[in-house]
Amino acid sequence: MISSPHNEKLKLIRKLQARKHRERSGLFAAEGEDLVEAAERAGAAVEFVLVAGQDVEPELLDAVSELGSGTRVIGVYRQSWSPPGGDLSVYLEGVRDPGNVGTIFRTVHALADGPLVLGPGCADPYSPRAVRASMGSVFARPPARAALAELEAFKLALDGSAGAVLGEVDLRTPLVLCLGGEREGLPADVIAGADAAARIPMRSDAPDSLNVASAAAVGLYEVANRMADRA
Amino acid sequence: MISSPHNEKLKLIRKLQARKHRERSGLFAAEGEDLVEAAERAGAAVEFVLVAGQDVEPELLDAVSELGSGTRVIGVYRQSWSPPGGDLSVYLEGVRDPGNVGTIFRTVHALADGPLVLGPGCADPYSPRAVRASMGSVFARPPARAALAELEAFKLALDGSAGAVLGEVDLRTPLVLCLGGEREGLPADVIAGADAAARIPMRSDAPDSLNVASAAAVGLYEVANRMADRA
Repeated sequence: MISSPHNEKLKLIRKLQARKHRERSGLFAAEGEDLVEAAERAGAAVEFVLVAGQDVEPELLDAVSELGSGTRVIGVYRQSWSPPGGDLSVYLEGVRDPGNVGTIFRTVHALADGPLVLGPGCADPYSPRAVRASMGSVFARPPARAALAELEAFKLALDGSAGAVLGEVDLRTPLVLCLGGEREGLPADVIAGADAAARIPMRSDAPDSLNVASAAAVGLYEVANRMADRA
Repeated sequence: MISSPHNEKLKLIRKLQARKHRERSGLFAAEGEDLVEAAERAGAAVEFVLVAGQDVEPELLDAVSELGSGTRVIGVYRQSWSPPGGDLSVYLEGVRDPGNVGTIFRTVHALADGPLVLGPGCADPYSPRAVRASMGSVFARPPARAALAELEAFKLALDGSAGAVLGEVDLRTPLVLCLGGEREGLPADVIAGADAAARIPMRSDAPDSLNVASAAAVGLYEVANRMADRA
């Protein structure tokens, strides 16, 4: 039973709260029974798992937790990366909110067969908030890293100013759905580099945009449905 | 220029971080220029607005901020409530995460003509996180409060275990799309009280569910599209 706050495993968990340390070590931490079970189911590469009251004094685990008191388990895992691919996947650029990135993991896992591909300017998919929001999908379907130009697929940009609406735009398979950050949307060069652009139809008094995770869900739903209809 | 931390306006802003004080006073606070501008555009009932460096010492505004340092403006507003209604609206029950409630405000504002209706067990729509996630839609389209049985509309429950898929289920207008909390989903009595239930089709290896805000976006998109096709 770990009883010292200077224990190396506890110090590692605390360090992994910083992106720099996650990138340097290639490791990340996941808190809570649901995530640790999701990691087991997915056969994730585990470094160690600490269970409060069994492997470590509960107060010491709480002290290195992101979520605060009452943490029952924290696991440390090796980051895994997928190659881009699949008939349907998502590419993000400039999506800085880790909660949105994590939510999109979950939606990609539910509705697409390819990975979530992270382009420049995105939140770290292995940050605590992204891992938590993924509800374990980060283990089941690890992210990919690539620039848009590297993707060998039909690139459909979701863009609020596009002329075509999502339900009517031409599709090709394999397809990668491209979304940008909340405020800026997709950079002009990404839209120019896409094979098609489409918007989600909104009411005339609507806000400027949907939340990016909500827009990704709508886009994946529509494209997956249309692909299934044609199959 | 307010220069005392004991100023009544500052004390009120701090108090409004607690749900109890929001409910007792019928007021809430919104931080940041984007939200204060959205309130102005919507003609929200403003109590006061404090601008850092103009109305109040910047450090004092930071000290009562939810977001921390660098807050430029905080407004205090009277809560507004809509009656249920519209051809298309959303009913939530047991959605406890204020970020999800706020995100759904924005989606309802973009895709529906009716309000977001909050049933039992939901996060306070006027909590700081919900207001922020709404990106101002809480001002443009204030929430409603009601029990499901009070709603005079065709009730379509989104339920992962439903037999019918969303794209094929029968619809009637006016329609209220019903969603439940992330873990529990909709209570059995809500599903039993609905006029129809449908699921979003997911892959065979999919997670148990989508994020509730993502599911709401998919549901509203599909129903709004089908209503538009029939109109």
